[in-house]
Amino acid sequence: MNLRRYLDWAATAVPDKDIPEGGAAIDAIFGNPSSSHAEGRLAKEALNDARERCGRVLNVDAEKLFFTSGGTESNAIFLHSLLLGKGKGRLLYPEIEHPSIRENCKTLEMLGRPCGIIGVEKDGRVSINTLTKALEKYPDAGFIAIMAVNNETGALMDMEGLLSLIRAKQAETGRQIHLHCDMVQALGKVLINIGGLDSASFSAHKLGGKRGMGLLYLKKKIQPLFKGGGQEGGIRPGTENTAGAIALAGLLERRANPEIVKEENKKARERLKYLIGELKTIKRCALIPEDRKEDDDRFSPWILQLRFKGLPGAVMVRALDKEGIAVSTGSACSSRSNERPALAAMGMDESARLEGFRISQGWSTEKADFQALLTGIEKVISCL
Amino acid sequence: MNLRRYLDWAATAVPDKDIPEGGAAIDAIFGNPSSSHAEGRLAKEALNDARERCGRVLNVDAEKLFFTSGGTESNAIFLHSLLLGKGKGRLLYPEIEHPSIRENCKTLEMLGRPCGIIGVEKDGRVSINTLTKALEKYPDAGFIAIMAVNNETGALMDMEGLLSLIRAKQAETGRQIHLHCDMVQALGKVLINIGGLDSASFSAHKLGGKRGMGLLYLKKKIQPLFKGGGQEGGIRPGTENTAGAIALAGLLERRANPEIVKEENKKARERLKYLIGELKTIKRCALIPEDRKEDDDRFSPWILQLRFKGLPGAVMVRALDKEGIAVSTGSACSSRSNERPALAAMGMDESARLEGFRISQGWSTEKADFQALLTGIEKVISCL
Repeated sequence: MNLRRYLDWAATAVPDKDIPEGGAAIDAIFGNPSSSHAEGRLAKEALNDARERCGRVLNVDAEKLFFTSGGTESNAIFLHSLLLGKGKGRLLYPEIEHPSIRENCKTLEMLGRPCGIIGVEKDGRVSINTLTKALEKYPDAGFIAIMAVNNETGALMDMEGLLSLIRAKQAETGRQIHLHCDMVQALGKVLINIGGLDSASFSAHKLGGKRGMGLLYLKKKIQPLFKGGGQEGGIRPGTENTAGAIALAGLLERRANPEIVKEENKKARERLKYLIGELKTIKRCALIPEDRKEDDDRFSPWILQLRFKGLPGAVMVRALDKEGIAVSTGSACSSRSNERPALAAMGMDESARLEGFRISQGWSTEKADFQALLTGIEKVISCL
Repeated sequence: MNLRRYLDWAATAVPDKDIPEGGAAIDAIFGNPSSSHAEGRLAKEALNDARERCGRVLNVDAEKLFFTSGGTESNAIFLHSLLLGKGKGRLLYPEIEHPSIRENCKTLEMLGRPCGIIGVEKDGRVSINTLTKALEKYPDAGFIAIMAVNNETGALMDMEGLLSLIRAKQAETGRQIHLHCDMVQALGKVLINIGGLDSASFSAHKLGGKRGMGLLYLKKKIQPLFKGGGQEGGIRPGTENTAGAIALAGLLERRANPEIVKEENKKARERLKYLIGELKTIKRCALIPEDRKEDDDRFSPWILQLRFKGLPGAVMVRALDKEGIAVSTGSACSSRSNERPALAAMGMDESARLEGFRISQGWSTEKADFQALLTGIEKVISCL
């Protein structure tokens, strides 16, 4: 195979090399952190040291961070705790959420938790306007889940603005509202501020780490549905993945430090500006949404959704794959179905939705990758 | 630190060296197995190849195996699916179950699933007798969870006998009964037969593998509570841990092949025979249960629970730790609490329960480790 161009970082990142996993020392810290003997205590110290390091990068108290098996589980721990919660506040979410939010919300509704949909603007973003409407429609809202960056379109939510709106509503009604934020596509990619949120989810592998590691931020303890041996303060049962936690801490220090994020974000923006500029010259190419600009604050520069009119996205993905370029339709997590709920929520009709495909870049992406992509696209559409 | 003697394998095993994790090839198979491009397809092939290898070792169809994040999650996926199940059959379990079963059962009961307790004999085993009684007491039983090997006492359940009883009851009443078996302490340690069960759970790290990997066997598909991107046939959402799955397959081939299990089990039996023989000569030492023999088919030879009359188990664990020997009280998963539900279920009174501690061995345990343990114990009790 020739040199492949990997442009599907939103599905999974190219693994980062030499993330310190405790290195050779890991052999000495194999113990079960819940064991009281020296091997156990060493592991517990290593685990909590990793937690402290994560807390420093994310600028939150370490004791509010819980290691999980990934972003999907982090979302599920928060959502399914609502099966036990006494407060019957309504759960609001936009339909652009990742399936690990959306599908669990549907289950919760089936099991008796009232839910409600937050609309999105034509650009796929939850706005002050759409959230205000939802809060007016559902005065019994008690829980809200909004993702920071949409995994299909890159739509970047103004989390601080939305949070202010929620807190104002709370002050007005005296009713507590919990805001959960899926930050899987935001971590290390855009600047984030976790402090004001009630909970947030993170994944290691989207950041170049190993599979099976994630983080859950919880401002206040919740009562999780899944029980077990009481690990992670009772929030996430199962023998702790000490090596995974150490590696995640190293990864956060390398990739999620605000200074680094700012710098990498700027580079990604520059690269994308070039790509969008070129794409706009290609006939039949339409960005999703169509008014997405070369440099557009409404979107994360790491993800671009687009379509070529008349060409199904799945065909484009297959054709580019043959040209050695990896892109995708929608999210990998819903690649089995033809549904594109995020695009549907934006008001796109079915035929246009099925033309959509996603380009997502990472820190090792170069202009040359985008040049190869453009060449590939030209070749594919010239055959039509 | 001098050479430590690690005798807490039931909490976590000493990590196996050089388990092939896909080796250098792993770099080429980093893709998301749900992606349709070449990187994704390669990862999917690798994942399913790992599944096939696991199926061959465990002698079950690969498509009935689902990769999870560990034994705790495997148990939870089965148990919490009962929140969605239409059948309202009662869920029976013995109190000796691991917290990842016991505590979730309590939650299920709170949420409306009727539960019932299966008694155990004085030796801590669920017997034909105690299960018969439970099935008579609860004619509405629809689900039963019984662990193959108890993690605290090593009590070895006659799963085939219990299964026959359940199937006979089923034939008699025409009522389906699902038998789930937590095999976390059985895998690679005692011969197992999965085929007749309805579901079974396994963990990688108890077998020397990495944390964060487990397996769930399901004879028939269930509807899991946790939703997400539809991975693992919808049974376990979250981007698949391809590297972990490959490593688990390699580990099963190395450690869980029946011939190897038979051989290692025999060696463990020989070592334990020596240890128990020596322990029986020490004053105040009592095995749990007291009638446990040097070579006793009722118990897994990998786990021994015992006590020294008048000495709290936690004190013994601490004192042995200072002598460089790692043993534990109860399971690591309940080390935070003073409860010993498995010992309580055996009818032991509280003061005796608190004296209990656990010695658990592994494949690299040697007679010298047990000799050092005996020396350590003699030293500790001579100070009393």
